[in-house]
Amino acid sequence: MTDGSVRQVGIGVLGYEGVAKAHLLAIQRVSTIFWPLPARPLLVAVAGRSADRVERAAQRYGAQAAYPDWRGLIDDRRVQVLINAGPNDVHAEASVAGAARGLHVLCEKPLARTSTEAAQMRDAAATARIVHMTGYNYRFVPAVRLARQLIREGRLGRIYHFRTRYCDDSMVDPSAPYSWRHDKARAGSGVIGDLAAHALDLARFLVGEVSAVSATARIFIDRRPRRDGGEGAVDVEDAIEAVLEFTTGAVGTLEASSFCPGRKNFLSFEVNGSGGSLAFNLERLNELELFVRDDGANGFRTVLVTEAHHPYGGTWWPPGHILGWEHTFVHQLHHFLLAVGGQSTVEPDGASFEDGYRCAVVCDALDRAAREGRRVPVEGLVTPMKPG
Amino acid sequence: MTDGSVRQVGIGVLGYEGVAKAHLLAIQRVSTIFWPLPARPLLVAVAGRSADRVERAAQRYGAQAAYPDWRGLIDDRRVQVLINAGPNDVHAEASVAGAARGLHVLCEKPLARTSTEAAQMRDAAATARIVHMTGYNYRFVPAVRLARQLIREGRLGRIYHFRTRYCDDSMVDPSAPYSWRHDKARAGSGVIGDLAAHALDLARFLVGEVSAVSATARIFIDRRPRRDGGEGAVDVEDAIEAVLEFTTGAVGTLEASSFCPGRKNFLSFEVNGSGGSLAFNLERLNELELFVRDDGANGFRTVLVTEAHHPYGGTWWPPGHILGWEHTFVHQLHHFLLAVGGQSTVEPDGASFEDGYRCAVVCDALDRAAREGRRVPVEGLVTPMKPG
Amino acid sequence: MTDGSVRQVGIGVLGYEGVAKAHLLAIQRVSTIFWPLPARPLLVAVAGRSADRVERAAQRYGAQAAYPDWRGLIDDRRVQVLINAGPNDVHAEASVAGAARGLHVLCEKPLARTSTEAAQMRDAAATARIVHMTGYNYRFVPAVRLARQLIREGRLGRIYHFRTRYCDDSMVDPSAPYSWRHDKARAGSGVIGDLAAHALDLARFLVGEVSAVSATARIFIDRRPRRDGGEGAVDVEDAIEAVLEFTTGAVGTLEASSFCPGRKNFLSFEVNGSGGSLAFNLERLNELELFVRDDGANGFRTVLVTEAHHPYGGTWWPPGHILGWEHTFVHQLHHFLLAVGGQSTVEPDGASFEDGYRCAVVCDALDRAAREGRRVPVEGLVTPMKPG
Amino acid sequence: MTDGSVRQVGIGVLGYEGVAKAHLLAIQRVSTIFWPLPARPLLVAVAGRSADRVERAAQRYGAQAAYPDWRGLIDDRRVQVLINAGPNDVHAEASVAGAARGLHVLCEKPLARTSTEAAQMRDAAATARIVHMTGYNYRFVPAVRLARQLIREGRLGRIYHFRTRYCDDSMVDPSAPYSWRHDKARAGSGVIGDLAAHALDLARFLVGEVSAVSATARIFIDRRPRRDGGEGAVDVEDAIEAVLEFTTGAVGTLEASSFCPGRKNFLSFEVNGSGGSLAFNLERLNELELFVRDDGANGFRTVLVTEAHHPYGGTWWPPGHILGWEHTFVHQLHHFLLAVGGQSTVEPDGASFEDGYRCAVVCDALDRAAREGRRVPVEGLVTPMKPG
Repeated sequence: MTDGSVRQVGIGVLGYEGVAKAHLLAIQRVSTIFWPLPARPLLVAVAGRSADRVERAAQRYGAQAAYPDWRGLIDDRRVQVLINAGPNDVHAEASVAGAARGLHVLCEKPLARTSTEAAQMRDAAATARIVHMTGYNYRFVPAVRLARQLIREGRLGRIYHFRTRYCDDSMVDPSAPYSWRHDKARAGSGVIGDLAAHALDLARFLVGEVSAVSATARIFIDRRPRRDGGEGAVDVEDAIEAVLEFTTGAVGTLEASSFCPGRKNFLSFEVNGSGGSLAFNLERLNELELFVRDDGANGFRTVLVTEAHHPYGGTWWPPGHILGWEHTFVHQLHHFLLAVGGQSTVEPDGASFEDGYRCAVVCDALDRAAREGRRVPVEGLVTPMKPG
Repeated sequence: MTDGSVRQVGIGVLGYEGVAKAHLLAIQRVSTIFWPLPARPLLVAVAGRSADRVERAAQRYGAQAAYPDWRGLIDDRRVQVLINAGPNDVHAEASVAGAARGLHVLCEKPLARTSTEAAQMRDAAATARIVHMTGYNYRFVPAVRLARQLIREGRLGRIYHFRTRYCDDSMVDPSAPYSWRHDKARAGSGVIGDLAAHALDLARFLVGEVSAVSATARIFIDRRPRRDGGEGAVDVEDAIEAVLEFTTGAVGTLEASSFCPGRKNFLSFEVNGSGGSLAFNLERLNELELFVRDDGANGFRTVLVTEAHHPYGGTWWPPGHILGWEHTFVHQLHHFLLAVGGQSTVEPDGASFEDGYRCAVVCDALDRAAREGRRVPVEGLVTPMKPG
Repeated sequence: MTDGSVRQVGIGVLGYEGVAKAHLLAIQRVSTIFWPLPARPLLVAVAGRSADRVERAAQRYGAQAAYPDWRGLIDDRRVQVLINAGPNDVHAEASVAGAARGLHVLCEKPLARTSTEAAQMRDAAATARIVHMTGYNYRFVPAVRLARQLIREGRLGRIYHFRTRYCDDSMVDPSAPYSWRHDKARAGSGVIGDLAAHALDLARFLVGEVSAVSATARIFIDRRPRRDGGEGAVDVEDAIEAVLEFTTGAVGTLEASSFCPGRKNFLSFEVNGSGGSLAFNLERLNELELFVRDDGANGFRTVLVTEAHHPYGGTWWPPGHILGWEHTFVHQLHHFLLAVGGQSTVEPDGASFEDGYRCAVVCDALDRAAREGRRVPVEGLVTPMKPG
Repeated sequence: MTDGSVRQVGIGVLGYEGVAKAHLLAIQRVSTIFWPLPARPLLVAVAGRSADRVERAAQRYGAQAAYPDWRGLIDDRRVQVLINAGPNDVHAEASVAGAARGLHVLCEKPLARTSTEAAQMRDAAATARIVHMTGYNYRFVPAVRLARQLIREGRLGRIYHFRTRYCDDSMVDPSAPYSWRHDKARAGSGVIGDLAAHALDLARFLVGEVSAVSATARIFIDRRPRRDGGEGAVDVEDAIEAVLEFTTGAVGTLEASSFCPGRKNFLSFEVNGSGGSLAFNLERLNELELFVRDDGANGFRTVLVTEAHHPYGGTWWPPGHILGWEHTFVHQLHHFLLAVGGQSTVEPDGASFEDGYRCAVVCDALDRAAREGRRVPVEGLVTPMKPG
């Protein structure tokens, strides 16, 4: 019993493991949850480097085709949308190529290895007039959305502080293997792009543009065993510690590290304003801590963001029935498909390539501040869009 | 790209809203997550009372057929498995009828309105030699499974206490409408069957059989507005308060109420034993609080149950990437399908109809203890299975 | 530099260890904190069974005299106030004798071993027209006082539920020694009088009179090593589990046990009403969890009860500077001294002997309900005051 | 009943409000809690600027004399110990003068307005060979002491991160009045000396010397109403945000601000090492969050630091009976009196003037880093001791 009148949107996914799995599951789910959806996604193809494994992934996720090279995927005429969930070093090349073929592109974060590369992607997308999005999926956490709503409504008044950490303990064990993430040539950076970029995107989403940064970086373990034997030299930072300044006058700290035992996926932030405060932690992503200044018996309240009147409330389940990490990908894909279908725009609730680029500029500034031991203004590093 | 060699299992779902939605989404997901699955579910049909709405549900969830009467569904020869997610008053009739046709049945909890009715279902299932399961999905929360594992390994030693609450605030508002859940004839009971039954199943799952109960029940608001005008008389309990005694000698309390402002889906328990304690709360279902007696710097530890070595670890995401409420239905369906496929059995990790029946007996005992104002032994109320 | 115009109140303390230490420190501090105090306490004497140890205690706490028998203490004409902090079996005898001599009496809880004994104390105090108080010091926790204030102001509306636990892990270790607390003849009861009595007093303080109880009790370890060799037979309950019913219609659970690993001084309660909820835990005694039903972004808020406008706010320190357990004894003594000085009355904020008696009646009802396996109405057990 | 054989130590206290009150109460209590104490403190005199108020304070706290000028106090021959709890601008002058008279000095933090001034105090104390201590009382929080113990035992392995915040909301309200704390001439700095200094002392206590800092400071509200009318110009920082680098290679962030609504006395830190992590927050000062890497069911455990085997365990109360903020002053005074009595030394568990000086150097470095927008190495700013 299918509904022939609904338009289908062919999707190709570059990658099939890690975060790509979240995208693939979102494709499976989005049109059931957001129903009816004007444009239903159809998984046309997956691409990856191992012919064998990509073939199995295609079977698993129900794709019609499997390509051992992303060029095949973007050449498949059934594909209208590219979800680029490959390693950082294919973000720019595949996205630009896809855009050139007119594909709408949802590219994983960090948008690129450097802000220069990100600027090329941004410009290419503008030239091609495609719909473009950077995979900053935490914008689609209901609690984050509620935080933004409260800030925009002025409930927190003038913002004084934004502090954020993204910590886990995945690299504490010295035997954790060397991967492309430890290789500057492929990854661009270490935890700056991997973790801090998410925190920075939320900083921009919630508080506004970063005007300057001061920072220190560290490599704690500089050699790691390769899976195939031997050792790899780590040339990206294991940790970044920074002070953030915002154009609004707010100040705060930022930290990213994979050397924090007991922290598993600890993206947290706290905002303080003249009217109140709020705090969030991705390990309890259904909750928002909120303090509102008033005269009564007061304190941080733990808002379980599952009520009907909350962002995405009623989309899934009754109050108190919590969502998981991957639900954010369903929300994100829904948002992207609406933009693809012309019902809305990626900005301001989603992150466009411009957002991805802006974030990359701050990432570059962090790296520079750490290397040069000085406060680095951000604005001077920004280049305006140069669409063809 | 489909895999023709995989056996398909036709599923019919009675119901399409509320908890039925969770089952329908689980059907969509289970074979992607647990891949490859020997027997892949195929959603054959949905059934419900409104022809129009059941038709739309069939479209939404991709069912091949829609039946306005569950009898049509169980007569559909493509259906091999019945998921009975209708109101309590169709649990027995439809499940027994399905079993008589040889359908394997996963029936929502409470298994029936009374233990007598539940016994009939249990006996019918045994007679028909079908695979049968009661939808006590919280057995499939990784943290609950870890709790069980720790208890069975003896980490908590001799169990002294099990206390549990299932509270929400859905009925605090006097204008919350009258529904079938307020009607003893249809629901069997109020929060006893709706909420306490879940808590009791976990009590049995974790600690063992309940030997006696003492209880008090209350109706706080005895008339509620009907959606279609007028008022309905509430004749089921709004709250149940009880003392539990276990055959092992452990004692504790049990409570269920929908009159607890701020509690949204607060199924919590705490277990104390000679070796340690553990605590759980469904609103933070990814976490288990654990205290182990030893000599060091000690305290309750918050285990984020997302590690690879945890139950269901690695099935979904890396550590720290939390699961949501509906994931339990995917785990539950996977477990059921394995049993249907003969790879394992429903018991002891899942709840069979026998478990559903046993739980219903304790529910009946709670009701009786509250009415009679005395401690009610449970064992005398249990009838052995009488398969035809 | 002393102020000769201030009246001094001579105090004798029965006991010098355990809770008596808290009273002795409160005497040292109360007139400095609540300054100026119309009637300043002067520690005249301490009494205890060991002549040697009581002498050392007198030196330590600056008492003018030390008595190896409490009769000497109450005969000391400088003593105007008796703080009876001895074991339960001297509560009645010493308090009644003190009252007969016209001493004002602050007696530790439980007021007596049985409600019969407590009634005698109450009646003797009324006959002697002394100021009398039962040491339910948790009424003087600022957060508890705030809870009471919020309830009385109607912020919680109609109260539906009061549930409470007082748990610790002091008896989990089988080698924890036998003491007078395990001896029914001396202690009257086990955790009922030791722990549950506190919880019941808070129940009465916050919600009102208990109308009926259902209960189960357990002795988990029935023999314990004596400090002086050999074993003692435990004949009081290790745990009590109960259902409470209040005259207002509220219902809830009560539990007390020393077999809860990881719980150290865990006196907790949660109240639910039509307007909101609040929760408390003595291990975080500076905090009150509060939920108020309204339309906004809502959740339990953690009120750090240290603000100037909170109960006892400004008495000690600025906001955020937390109080400890023994501060409640300073508040309690201050309250008692005001009553002794005629500036106020013990009731309703403090617990009188009548309150101590009423609590003892509920304790007796718990014991009876557990033994008889039936719901026991409380009111029928209450005897009116019979002053001479 | 006094013990004539105990030596008494005459104490003079400069100040009688705010933190001075905590010192005065500690004098009252220390010899009762730590009993018997070889040298019992006797409160000889208090000093302050208002003759009338200092007289009343002397009555309240039982001092033998009251001086409207601290010079009178240090000239009183009964005084052997000076507790300098006056505003920052009398720290150096009074402490140096007291040292010159041979008084042992416990001086409040920050030791001085600048590191230059602090160096003078340090040198004067060394010249005079007195016992000297800086009032970094949070070293005497049992949970902090346990943290230090765990780190020194190597339980956390190699330390990677130390991050700390000291936040409150005392200045969010624009009508919060102007005081000496807003005046650089009197206070030396704003939150750097008031709040960050505590955090830095803990950093040094737990992890070691700070090698470099990067920072940003802000004044959010630059004019405040004076209590006596008119406005005062705020010329000290309202907030400081910094990156810390340690000589051990550890890195982290530091923040201090009084513009954080809902934070009341929120001095928190988190330490991550190769073996585990720990976290602390002064608003819950009885608790330490501890994560130890091992193979089992793991997570941050909340250690309620009140057990007999914990630091200061058994000094006050049984497990679970929490301490308050001012207890740290009793511990600190005990420690100081032992040093005065020659039973131990101030270092390493207490903060000497050298520690106070070292902390002041880092405070200066923060200020300089913020002003100059660059990473400032600390070691070059340190001057060695120059005793006369």
